[in-house]
Amino acid sequence: MIPASAYAAQSATSPLAPFEFTRRDVQPHDVQIDVLFCGVCHSDLHQARNEWHNSRYPMVPGHEIIGRVVAVGAHVKKFKVGDLAGVGCMVDSCQTCPSCAEGLEQYCENQVSYTYNSTEQNSTTPTQGGYSSTMVVREEFVVKVSDALDLASAAPLLCAGITMYSPLRHWQVGPGQEVGIVGLGGLGHIGVKLAKAMGARVTVFTTSASKAADAQALGADAVILSTDPAAMKAASGTFHLLVDTVPRTHDLNAYTPLLRRDGALVLVGALEPLEPGVHGGILIGGRRTVAGSSIGGIAETQEMFDFCAQHGIGCDVEVIPMHTINEAYERLLKNDVKYRFVIDMATLGAA
Amino acid sequence: MIPASAYAAQSATSPLAPFEFTRRDVQPHDVQIDVLFCGVCHSDLHQARNEWHNSRYPMVPGHEIIGRVVAVGAHVKKFKVGDLAGVGCMVDSCQTCPSCAEGLEQYCENQVSYTYNSTEQNSTTPTQGGYSSTMVVREEFVVKVSDALDLASAAPLLCAGITMYSPLRHWQVGPGQEVGIVGLGGLGHIGVKLAKAMGARVTVFTTSASKAADAQALGADAVILSTDPAAMKAASGTFHLLVDTVPRTHDLNAYTPLLRRDGALVLVGALEPLEPGVHGGILIGGRRTVAGSSIGGIAETQEMFDFCAQHGIGCDVEVIPMHTINEAYERLLKNDVKYRFVIDMATLGAA
Repeated sequence: MIPASAYAAQSATSPLAPFEFTRRDVQPHDVQIDVLFCGVCHSDLHQARNEWHNSRYPMVPGHEIIGRVVAVGAHVKKFKVGDLAGVGCMVDSCQTCPSCAEGLEQYCENQVSYTYNSTEQNSTTPTQGGYSSTMVVREEFVVKVSDALDLASAAPLLCAGITMYSPLRHWQVGPGQEVGIVGLGGLGHIGVKLAKAMGARVTVFTTSASKAADAQALGADAVILSTDPAAMKAASGTFHLLVDTVPRTHDLNAYTPLLRRDGALVLVGALEPLEPGVHGGILIGGRRTVAGSSIGGIAETQEMFDFCAQHGIGCDVEVIPMHTINEAYERLLKNDVKYRFVIDMATLGAA
Repeated sequence: MIPASAYAAQSATSPLAPFEFTRRDVQPHDVQIDVLFCGVCHSDLHQARNEWHNSRYPMVPGHEIIGRVVAVGAHVKKFKVGDLAGVGCMVDSCQTCPSCAEGLEQYCENQVSYTYNSTEQNSTTPTQGGYSSTMVVREEFVVKVSDALDLASAAPLLCAGITMYSPLRHWQVGPGQEVGIVGLGGLGHIGVKLAKAMGARVTVFTTSASKAADAQALGADAVILSTDPAAMKAASGTFHLLVDTVPRTHDLNAYTPLLRRDGALVLVGALEPLEPGVHGGILIGGRRTVAGSSIGGIAETQEMFDFCAQHGIGCDVEVIPMHTINEAYERLLKNDVKYRFVIDMATLGAA
């Protein structure tokens, strides 16, 4: 077994604190990665505090992981010691169902092994995330990371980035298209950059007038205050695609009329019922779609990393030391971050 | 002006009664059609009684019209006197916007002229429907009807038929696919026949155990009682496409889990908010879609007529004389019809 140092939650109410545990020995298909940077996703906080009612403790959060390969199993082909590597939300899946066969492991029809607060494919061994010194992951779930990327800025690509990239690609965004990004947080800000790099005209929808300048600095062509009925009405029938990052219930009927015929509003954040109910007449009147999309497959994550290296895209991050994670969670609750905290794991031993 | 006899509603509360009016003279691009059969759509009743709060009177309902061409304008190319012809929900559109240019006149971005309770493109002249002796319609909105079809059974294809055919085609139904039809009424019954003819395996969802045998007689491979939680659960992740004909609010979260990854639930009946709200997590977890679809374009309506002639498909109808229309409306309210009333317009003068 391989010793690992980490920060973990011991219960829904305890702050994260130093924790020692072990990783499995490196198996023939495994890569061992010493973690350099780990992004802080809002879902880390939800799960550390058992807000989704499925938490298992002790829990080491973290699924936006960039590190360096320090050991490889005998059958590993893609990686050698010294390579940069990335691990996102998944560390395994059945790898045999139709979704896995299509490279869509995030929709595995049997069992996804998430990076933490989950189990390995044996349904027993807990998985532990990236707020830790080292990871052992089978190579199929590890992506190659170009050294052209700023590593701290690249870490959140592994969840926030792919969550936006996948629907932008699946709904075939390109030049001449009007894309709207609803909400300007960790997901939204990288969505703006990705959609712009794909050639679309990008509009940000926000409730905060103060975010207008931020959105334009990120490259947005326009900003619409969703609280401004006249501006919303003026945008009727405009958008090919709206990617909706709002992580809680909200009125989709404010957005569906903004779609043009055959346009799609794609949810990536709200995991709950969306009230009030979607208006059937608005969908029927323009063959409009409301859909959902979940992260992305491993092949697509690799594609995104290559795309980001090519276009010089990274997340806007605030690098923090490990021991300030509990303060970072409190700031996250107040949306006081532009746009993602990333832990510098070299600080793990510091206090 | 051309004299026409009809049945019309004079107000939201008056029964339909005989009515004399005039049609415009045949213009160079017009076809005059003497009506042989006209289907009775539930929307006729809604509009005759102003249930959508947009009714104009006097109103001659009817948009499932089969007739014979009795005159053609100087520039008409597709039709000659004596041809069979069909008119559906639309009699004109702007014909210049992107949707019209793509043959999707039902999504015209300027103004659709519906067959009745609407206006011509001048936004002034009222349109009047098919419960009448004769129609004058520009040829672009008239479809050719094969004399291989039973004309009474063909009439409801012009609304019910195309409303089902268009989403089945748009979502590319074919052999090897699992298609569900939610609701077994005028729309659902022809949806079963069309989806079967396209090669899909077809399941009917109904709240009525008594409809199971009917569904199988129409060709359905399976019937699921939507009130049976075990049967619904057993169908999880099964369907490529669900076409939902229910014309009122209902819980979509009962159906979205039945979709497989990338599956779509397509609304064709409910023009109102659908409560309770759609569950974001169910859509996100399988990249599932909730969409809407409205009738179909003229080119697609023609394609459907040709498809139905080739496959020997017609609607199951009960042919009624014109003067019993008010009784038919009362029976429609009780769902007491299998599956569509069709008026034999030769009975127009009878009492």
